[in-house]
Amino acid sequence: MPAAKSLFIVIVGCGRLGSYLANRLSRQGHHVVVVDANPDAFDGLSAEYSGFRVECDASEFAVLNQATIVQAYMLIVTTNNENINVMVGQVARKLLNVPRVVVRIEEPDRRRIYEQLGLDIVCPASLVGDEILQSMVQQALITTENGRTR
Amino acid sequence: MPAAKSLFIVIVGCGRLGSYLANRLSRQGHHVVVVDANPDAFDGLSAEYSGFRVECDASEFAVLNQATIVQAYMLIVTTNNENINVMVGQVARKLLNVPRVVVRIEEPDRRRIYEQLGLDIVCPASLVGDEILQSMVQQALITTENGRTR
Repeated sequence: MPAAKSLFIVIVGCGRLGSYLANRLSRQGHHVVVVDANPDAFDGLSAEYSGFRVECDASEFAVLNQATIVQAYMLIVTTNNENINVMVGQVARKLLNVPRVVVRIEEPDRRRIYEQLGLDIVCPASLVGDEILQSMVQQALITTENGRTR
Repeated sequence: MPAAKSLFIVIVGCGRLGSYLANRLSRQGHHVVVVDANPDAFDGLSAEYSGFRVECDASEFAVLNQATIVQAYMLIVTTNNENINVMVGQVARKLLNVPRVVVRIEEPDRRRIYEQLGLDIVCPASLVGDEILQSMVQQALITTENGRTR
């Protein structure tokens, strides 16, 4: 692990992925702001979470909270709406010049287009799918190679 | 990649993750059966998908299609209902003795309990979250270590 250098990181969307990241990044000592339109979503934050909560719709946040975003070294957009995520990500990357912008998308096929926009892309379906293919299916193949078939 | 040994793999749930896996496993030459209650879900299968489609509710499938499951070397349960996934996985693993059972769950905290039941667990939120933490946040820290801060 690198030295304890802390980053200012804004996380849009406090669902399972957003809260998982917010809890861990806060514990690592980073300055975290987490944004969600639904105040109940913040229930996913742990008792140790020491960052800020902003109750705001993601698409409005990109417009209304430029003062917050423009200070961020990293923006991570995790809502389950791919179009909103990409829009928010583009505003942050292109207009507000945030150095690193990570965007969650749903359709693996669109990854390349979004990467050309300067966004770092994560796609749960392909990431989880590749993990299953590369570890579990490969392991099963090795097992059957060694004779344990049905 | 190992030699072209093919496995009989049943995938329950044909959403983004299930269809991603079904398409790739079919292309790799495995015998694939994909199950979903919603016939529209099969639209996610590619033209090259050469496996079977079974239109059936996941929880009923575990009861009604034991003849199919019992032949499988691997069952991958990918619906977005964790309780159903674990139930189907347990039936397959414990009652029908399927050698490898992979189950998608939502809550990272329950992973250990399910692994004790003999299930291989994938949790999208923690997998994607860890990918962001381990690659993108680490990369950002290295960049700032080299002096490029805001």
